[in-house]
Amino acid sequence: MRARVRDARVGRLATVTADGAPHMVPVCFALLDASIVTAVDNKPKRSGSLKRVANIVANGRASLLVDEYTEDWDRLWWIRVDGLGRVVDDSNTRAAALDELMAKYQQYARRPPPGPVIELTELRWSAWGDHQA
Amino acid sequence: MRARVRDARVGRLATVTADGAPHMVPVCFALLDASIVTAVDNKPKRSGSLKRVANIVANGRASLLVDEYTEDWDRLWWIRVDGLGRVVDDSNTRAAALDELMAKYQQYARRPPPGPVIELTELRWSAWGDHQA
Repeated sequence: MRARVRDARVGRLATVTADGAPHMVPVCFALLDASIVTAVDNKPKRSGSLKRVANIVANGRASLLVDEYTEDWDRLWWIRVDGLGRVVDDSNTRAAALDELMAKYQQYARRPPPGPVIELTELRWSAWGDHQA
Repeated sequence: MRARVRDARVGRLATVTADGAPHMVPVCFALLDASIVTAVDNKPKRSGSLKRVANIVANGRASLLVDEYTEDWDRLWWIRVDGLGRVVDDSNTRAAALDELMAKYQQYARRPPPGPVIELTELRWSAWGDHQA
């Protein structure tokens, strides 16, 4: 289960707006020992202007979903990791997260993401389907 | 934008739990003129026992995300449809929704989904990236 999430090239990050609506966006991410990190690809014009960041500041609950679709529905699976999100504010943690992201994605190695880094901790794992591999 | 969502084989449905956490699950769905329908593949043991259904009853806000990952990040795109979810309770609407789902997915044509049908209405569309097609 960890290997599938670690190796997945994309996940979907869900957060909740201050007024209780779901918000979802595809993200690149890296799985660390006890956390998941994802970075904002562009520098927001002002702090908190990006919805996923504003949501995490207002309501720390966040969720990452990894799945693969196939027409053979007996082979469908998904893995969901629920956790608490926060915007990383210390430079060491940020640098370590970016190292992991750049190691996983050569696109980031060529052009490190300038925006905020989001970290999910206190991870709770759920899974469904054909996820024995 | 509509065509990409209509033709997408999978989307991710986000809802919000009664205590304000995001909940996400991959879903098969069909795009109708002014709504999106998705069905639960299995009959829940009791009404409201399935989280996405319980969430929609407690908090109607729901969101469907369609995207495609590619290593060429210049070609990434996503389309998100936010709306109000409800569990369909009249048999005509349910039958019409199942017709659309069975027309789109031969897997459903062989074995119609026995569980509740969820309908998203009052759709608001957002998109990002390479979505001209």
